[in-house]
Amino acid sequence: MKRAAVTLKDVAAAAGVSAMTASKAMRNAPGISDATRDRIQAIAKEMGYTANASASMLKSGRSGIIQVIVNEYDIPFYSKLIDALSNAIVSQDMVPFLQETKYQSDTAATALSNSLFSGTLADGVIIHASGLTGELVDSIKQGRPALFIDTCEEKTLVSAIMFPNEEGARAAVQHLAAQGCKRIGIVGPPFIDKNELLSAPTTRKLRLMGAKSALINLGLPYDESVVIPLKGMNEEYAREAIRERGRDGLPFDGLFCLNDSSAIGTIRGLADLGLRVPDDVKVIGFDGVTSGEFMVPSLTTISVDMGQLASLAVMNLRQQIEAPAGKRPDPTTITVGYTLTQRESTAVR
Amino acid sequence: MKRAAVTLKDVAAAAGVSAMTASKAMRNAPGISDATRDRIQAIAKEMGYTANASASMLKSGRSGIIQVIVNEYDIPFYSKLIDALSNAIVSQDMVPFLQETKYQSDTAATALSNSLFSGTLADGVIIHASGLTGELVDSIKQGRPALFIDTCEEKTLVSAIMFPNEEGARAAVQHLAAQGCKRIGIVGPPFIDKNELLSAPTTRKLRLMGAKSALINLGLPYDESVVIPLKGMNEEYAREAIRERGRDGLPFDGLFCLNDSSAIGTIRGLADLGLRVPDDVKVIGFDGVTSGEFMVPSLTTISVDMGQLASLAVMNLRQQIEAPAGKRPDPTTITVGYTLTQRESTAVR
Repeated sequence: MKRAAVTLKDVAAAAGVSAMTASKAMRNAPGISDATRDRIQAIAKEMGYTANASASMLKSGRSGIIQVIVNEYDIPFYSKLIDALSNAIVSQDMVPFLQETKYQSDTAATALSNSLFSGTLADGVIIHASGLTGELVDSIKQGRPALFIDTCEEKTLVSAIMFPNEEGARAAVQHLAAQGCKRIGIVGPPFIDKNELLSAPTTRKLRLMGAKSALINLGLPYDESVVIPLKGMNEEYAREAIRERGRDGLPFDGLFCLNDSSAIGTIRGLADLGLRVPDDVKVIGFDGVTSGEFMVPSLTTISVDMGQLASLAVMNLRQQIEAPAGKRPDPTTITVGYTLTQRESTAVR
Repeated sequence: MKRAAVTLKDVAAAAGVSAMTASKAMRNAPGISDATRDRIQAIAKEMGYTANASASMLKSGRSGIIQVIVNEYDIPFYSKLIDALSNAIVSQDMVPFLQETKYQSDTAATALSNSLFSGTLADGVIIHASGLTGELVDSIKQGRPALFIDTCEEKTLVSAIMFPNEEGARAAVQHLAAQGCKRIGIVGPPFIDKNELLSAPTTRKLRLMGAKSALINLGLPYDESVVIPLKGMNEEYAREAIRERGRDGLPFDGLFCLNDSSAIGTIRGLADLGLRVPDDVKVIGFDGVTSGEFMVPSLTTISVDMGQLASLAVMNLRQQIEAPAGKRPDPTTITVGYTLTQRESTAVR
């Protein structure tokens, strides 16, 4: 394992000054005394600090850049994910380079294969974006280490950190039942038959599978009548679908929404129908977005430990990056933990 | 003005294929016929397409990278801002490089002066982050073009695109009055005396100034009693402050919150007190975050046109970048427009 590069922070700590002072000294900027500047520069030289990124890159053969490809920045799930990944990457003295694809598989492939940072510049890539399959990534990543967040693959060509999709969904439905719900519905992807759920898993299928097994264990139905399918897993589609379905009356006293965005849209749609949450219908989401805490009612959800997820992702990628040539570890799949965060949207009162 | 670099998209369009196919052809990847590959490569050569970013950079002296420095990713205001800036930068065939500083001025300065992309690599930088004054930016940006989003400076050393702080705040308070509010409060920074408001403007002072002038024009008081000061402009601090103040009864029927995050926290805090929005208290925010539409009640706000803001920012920066040596335009300040988006939180019913 190579020695980690000396950072400006290390120099600042050794010199007993702030990073800003150290930075000024290294750039010969005004605002500090000549004596301080000379002392800091001497310490930096002694520690082998290289301010010039290109020189440092040439020496190590690494850039320290980790490419992060996601679908979108302005939705609560991704803003939390990129914040967590950015923190984890920066805490390892590496530099995150973020890109959003707007769900376009072409854009995702281009980001990976043909961006300014493709080829040798980025040391590795972390992906949570539509359209990049393991096979595609493997064929175009040009040998770079890669890691998926929450993507099921039949052949594990690329390592993945998974959300606790099946377990979390099961816990969500069990929670609704424990809160007294007897007519539980599922808001999310279209109904999938029990047997078909078993083939070629996807994130949504795994969440449906968990929900299905909980419903069946509780002696409740799992069939087309309990699923409210959305055109997309966001607030707007959920709001519309709930309003549409509610015209003929909504036969549910509990709804499990497959992500928090659709839960927020569901609560909004129920309000449009004059239905109160949690009194008329209890609602639980999945993911644990930051805004769920401040809504009225606040949102009960399966909170995924995003900090843990990001740490695991960066650790896995780093192991791939630092493996000696030809000895890269086999792709692995790890599932992170969750907490059922109980708030007002499923309260009994 | 230099000719814009040929992109993979241009090649794909000229060849009549998808960007993914063009990308495969340029990388000699499997999945397309030899004939198609040869044809696309010939077209790319003819158009002067350079797949190698470094080679292209050496030729033009430009990297096409725009550095974007913000305080934080996981809050609704910034997720919308970085999405808009990223879209505007990508639409100009440039590459956004995002960094978050977590409100640390040291981190902000280091991002600007000492990151991997400092010096000559990034063509310019767009900043909405704490601690970077015009003087500091001017001293450490190493001659690169720079642009502030919403920062007031006494000496305009760096161009800025401003939010419509004063006008928007005035409109917000006038709207509350038009909806029948007679006891209007302000949630945000500590009370600032009328005269002090005039010296050294800041974003918050400008919003307070707009609110103040509207209150006075309406014959309503502007003094310490109508300001609920927050320790920070976020959901949690607003919720706490409202709960705290509400213990002795809340003498307001309308609240103007200086940003949407504090408006969301205010509505949450009012709910904690058993007060209903808009029936007991009407609430209006500022910024126009995406989630405001789906809250219950949905949030009335001063919506800033973030797309326009991002376009103006990128256009201004591009003019600086493309100016001939020694002929860079003087720093300018432009203020973007707003819309008063009326929703449930200020409804009369």
